[in-house]
Amino acid sequence: MAAPKFATGLWVVGGTADRFNRLGYADFLSLRAKVAAAARVPGLQGVETHQSEFDDKVTAKDFVHWLKDGGLVCSCMNLDVWSTRQFKLGAFTNRDPNVRQQALDEAKRAVDLAREVGAPSVCLWNGADGWDYPFQADYLEQWNLEVDGIRKVAEYAAPDIKVALEYKLREPRNRMLVGDVGKALAIALEIGLPNLGVQIDFGHALMARESPGESVAILARHNKLFNVHFNESMRDWDDDMIPGTVHLWETLEFLYWCKVTDYEGWFGLDMFPYREDGVQAAAMAIRNLQAMWKLLDKIDMKALKKAQEQMDAVAVHEVVRRMVFV
Amino acid sequence: MAAPKFATGLWVVGGTADRFNRLGYADFLSLRAKVAAAARVPGLQGVETHQSEFDDKVTAKDFVHWLKDGGLVCSCMNLDVWSTRQFKLGAFTNRDPNVRQQALDEAKRAVDLAREVGAPSVCLWNGADGWDYPFQADYLEQWNLEVDGIRKVAEYAAPDIKVALEYKLREPRNRMLVGDVGKALAIALEIGLPNLGVQIDFGHALMARESPGESVAILARHNKLFNVHFNESMRDWDDDMIPGTVHLWETLEFLYWCKVTDYEGWFGLDMFPYREDGVQAAAMAIRNLQAMWKLLDKIDMKALKKAQEQMDAVAVHEVVRRMVFV
Amino acid sequence: MAAPKFATGLWVVGGTADRFNRLGYADFLSLRAKVAAAARVPGLQGVETHQSEFDDKVTAKDFVHWLKDGGLVCSCMNLDVWSTRQFKLGAFTNRDPNVRQQALDEAKRAVDLAREVGAPSVCLWNGADGWDYPFQADYLEQWNLEVDGIRKVAEYAAPDIKVALEYKLREPRNRMLVGDVGKALAIALEIGLPNLGVQIDFGHALMARESPGESVAILARHNKLFNVHFNESMRDWDDDMIPGTVHLWETLEFLYWCKVTDYEGWFGLDMFPYREDGVQAAAMAIRNLQAMWKLLDKIDMKALKKAQEQMDAVAVHEVVRRMVFV
Amino acid sequence: MAAPKFATGLWVVGGTADRFNRLGYADFLSLRAKVAAAARVPGLQGVETHQSEFDDKVTAKDFVHWLKDGGLVCSCMNLDVWSTRQFKLGAFTNRDPNVRQQALDEAKRAVDLAREVGAPSVCLWNGADGWDYPFQADYLEQWNLEVDGIRKVAEYAAPDIKVALEYKLREPRNRMLVGDVGKALAIALEIGLPNLGVQIDFGHALMARESPGESVAILARHNKLFNVHFNESMRDWDDDMIPGTVHLWETLEFLYWCKVTDYEGWFGLDMFPYREDGVQAAAMAIRNLQAMWKLLDKIDMKALKKAQEQMDAVAVHEVVRRMVFV
Repeated sequence: MAAPKFATGLWVVGGTADRFNRLGYADFLSLRAKVAAAARVPGLQGVETHQSEFDDKVTAKDFVHWLKDGGLVCSCMNLDVWSTRQFKLGAFTNRDPNVRQQALDEAKRAVDLAREVGAPSVCLWNGADGWDYPFQADYLEQWNLEVDGIRKVAEYAAPDIKVALEYKLREPRNRMLVGDVGKALAIALEIGLPNLGVQIDFGHALMARESPGESVAILARHNKLFNVHFNESMRDWDDDMIPGTVHLWETLEFLYWCKVTDYEGWFGLDMFPYREDGVQAAAMAIRNLQAMWKLLDKIDMKALKKAQEQMDAVAVHEVVRRMVFV
Repeated sequence: MAAPKFATGLWVVGGTADRFNRLGYADFLSLRAKVAAAARVPGLQGVETHQSEFDDKVTAKDFVHWLKDGGLVCSCMNLDVWSTRQFKLGAFTNRDPNVRQQALDEAKRAVDLAREVGAPSVCLWNGADGWDYPFQADYLEQWNLEVDGIRKVAEYAAPDIKVALEYKLREPRNRMLVGDVGKALAIALEIGLPNLGVQIDFGHALMARESPGESVAILARHNKLFNVHFNESMRDWDDDMIPGTVHLWETLEFLYWCKVTDYEGWFGLDMFPYREDGVQAAAMAIRNLQAMWKLLDKIDMKALKKAQEQMDAVAVHEVVRRMVFV
Repeated sequence: MAAPKFATGLWVVGGTADRFNRLGYADFLSLRAKVAAAARVPGLQGVETHQSEFDDKVTAKDFVHWLKDGGLVCSCMNLDVWSTRQFKLGAFTNRDPNVRQQALDEAKRAVDLAREVGAPSVCLWNGADGWDYPFQADYLEQWNLEVDGIRKVAEYAAPDIKVALEYKLREPRNRMLVGDVGKALAIALEIGLPNLGVQIDFGHALMARESPGESVAILARHNKLFNVHFNESMRDWDDDMIPGTVHLWETLEFLYWCKVTDYEGWFGLDMFPYREDGVQAAAMAIRNLQAMWKLLDKIDMKALKKAQEQMDAVAVHEVVRRMVFV
Repeated sequence: MAAPKFATGLWVVGGTADRFNRLGYADFLSLRAKVAAAARVPGLQGVETHQSEFDDKVTAKDFVHWLKDGGLVCSCMNLDVWSTRQFKLGAFTNRDPNVRQQALDEAKRAVDLAREVGAPSVCLWNGADGWDYPFQADYLEQWNLEVDGIRKVAEYAAPDIKVALEYKLREPRNRMLVGDVGKALAIALEIGLPNLGVQIDFGHALMARESPGESVAILARHNKLFNVHFNESMRDWDDDMIPGTVHLWETLEFLYWCKVTDYEGWFGLDMFPYREDGVQAAAMAIRNLQAMWKLLDKIDMKALKKAQEQMDAVAVHEVVRRMVFV
């Protein structure tokens, strides 16, 4: 695998809020200002954004122009069908057919925008599709609607735009339908379209108690890893921290599996640096990931393969600990 | 113990947002409108609010007037030193002495307001006092500052206003100083003032993997349970749901321990009904809690005591299952 | 759906140990004594056991005889390739081909025994197939071996014996391959054999932060729910407690989804009553499940469907709370 | 602080089992053989053991002799009142006064043995004192008995033997009384004896969602950190893995706080290397901890203090990331 390509979600550098501080920990920036901020991040080559950033006044053409000025490209167009009140009870799975249609229309608009700005993929993170209480959802109905909607979007996007399902166990709903890598893969297998795959968010994988490196391998077996969102967490929640600051070994292992399975996509930062400067946080994220990528070179691959064949944890760590310990 | 007294945090009926939907799942109400909404909740006798709701235009006097109109009283004045940008890195523990002083001034203002509106207690939930990353905090310094601040507030509030520490493991910081009932109690024991105690938030207790009923008992041993925040959760996070909708047995047990230890304080609702109507959610919360309180009457207390003496889980559930199962 | 059929794992009534008390919290019973103990459980119709209980001295014929004496049948033959030292580093995924073959041979023996004793299904819970440390496993190799092994067993069992994958996130390995319902379903979809499906263990679903009722629905969409293991937990771990003692609402919802999807299989108890009497614990488990099954009759199905269509949690609980609250 | 002193629990090198494999993943060794095995661990200076290892045939005198032969000392005598059936429902909190007395007698025997073998401390990990089900325990009674028992042991041990409370959230009981650092500290403050303190087990701190470095600081404020048990985990459970293999940053921060608070006690390994060779696992543990201890020298202390004063996570990690990243 060649050198990794780094993008950032523009929300990383554009201001954050939470339920206790709704007005924000910093000023919220316009799309143009966010691109300009991203352009100041050393080592960054791409950005991700949402279809909801665009309207009559902020066009795809403008965006491409701003990106070009900053020496950047758009690596992924994310679907936003969760930031406004209308989708509060669901998007693809909303039981109101009008709202459901609006959600699918927004998804198609995201595909259109991906084509216009030259992004290779659309990410579906259906944050509103889930439930909060026992008994609240008719699961059969919800699953049928979710799979149906995903299929429609993937068909609309075929053959040139990849559609990546981003799974997440919870938040903003207490539970979400496409909750983990297994469910995302099962949907991809059921629908069976070549341009439908999965996006791993490192923190979401940790929250689902996955071994993130294994999640890469599972998807690579089916050629279904389409995009990556990078961050870090304290494991129980989607803390969206700077990569490499907590779970060093599992981050190294994740990168290792991207490397050995020849992942050729982007590493897109998806952080919420509530109390940090977004540009500084993104810059440190990329430096950490680059440093970890370089640490992988210290692995004696032959010795690692042999130790893994013996399935012996001590033998394995005899090899990999040299990345960090003398 | 007499019939339980129910209050609600006014935020329950006043609109909610989250980090993905900053503009809110419903319109945000003024303090006056929130009191009016609360007055429509059947069974409600009191409200809780924050000192930050008050300024030159919205006075304590106004508030008391509105409450009286609604047949309500103020059961607790909560300290808000976390909803604005200035406290993002800490309040009582902010290393900037000016910000720290502002936080303490706000706490004293909360005590003053409690006196003005006739609230028996001030709740200190110091949501900004914590850290997000390993190595970020000088824990010794933070703990000294936190204890020092709490002591000052408790001294200012003595003897007539109770100061209750509301513990929480995390959110909005990834970890917070006063994280669980043990730490809150240890602080209360260290400071040793009779008007300093602890407030249990049911969901915070679950998140810390406490048995909420045990948390009541631990505090009751020291006469330190000063106030209760009620809600429900999926256990891993502070979901602030309607009580009684998930962990029925642990809620019953919590109420049981309030009853047998003669807790005489309020049960204040602290929910975030993001996608529900706040008034309806509060009404159901009170009905559920009243129903559970009544279910406790079905316990054969002599049989329960005997089964607990035998420490036999089957024998115990033979007694308590009759609350729910025929 | 007709009345539910209850079985128990014979280990429930046969003595338990843990890593701190290896000698056991009660005496371990022989297979014959376990069947006799099970026969004393009111309401029980079936038992589950493991292929490893049988040898030259304890034959399938003996077992069928003992069962008949107790008025019981065998509802499931479980595969044990984890209780002995030889499989400590893996069974189907062991990198030593000899050990791997032994594991597959044991699985075929389980299928043979299922046929001999008249059990409709074999359960594969591959507790040793996983890893404990980052970097320990070659995930690609492990997944290929696991899928390959499962396919071979399912082919051997076709067409008359159902093979059910029992997923579990962790324990005894820190992470296991077939970790959640999504991964189990993805494997079943990949292999595509009609006699290959999934077994839900209620506590495993909770540990994976699934909504257990949703797990039923997901599998029912593909007609892949083959067997159920019932128990209860504190959610974070596989505590194997008595059903109905903690998560009442989620247990009710699980039973509800079994009912509305016409699940026709068994409910097999899989508890570890370390400090309780096994027969008493099983008896209470069945009484609790029967009581909950009966509570479902209180649901106004039309009202529930309508509330679920509105996706309104308060409206839904207005309907379902009547099962418990007056 | 001088160079760290390393001990190992003798159980680390003596064979392990779990509830699924009761016969063990390796042969169980005699006390003498365990001491001999420990003596082969490079860098090891001490061992911990339990009072229950001793009887008429295996005396303290024998033990001291074997230790001397291996160039080792005994760093801590642990109390075992949980490995046998008699204590299954509780030790210090058993409601049967006879069993309770036996537990206290064993604790006094542990103190006696500590004196005989020259160990500076006794560790009380009361694994059986807790509960498994809601309503099972009379918490008030349990807490009174627990505090009473601890006080008696501390008084018996005064003034020369330190008594350290080892807290743990759960396992083998679903919840245990002395569950986290806050509760342990609160007990120590309540009893108020100078020879009563706390022992931190690194994995227990992680399981309670503590920041282990903060736990050190909290206890250091009260001069109450008496002993350390070292291991590593996947955070949700007490996995007892080799230190440094998962949570590198939090382990470094833990060691940092031991260093800056001048902790002068032992680092005792408490691992369960189920599938690994115990001696190799212990050897790697010590090498990892020594390597991490050395990495701390790379911290620019002045820069760290300044960054912590600014409370800025990026500034802090600019300093500490140099321990690992170039």
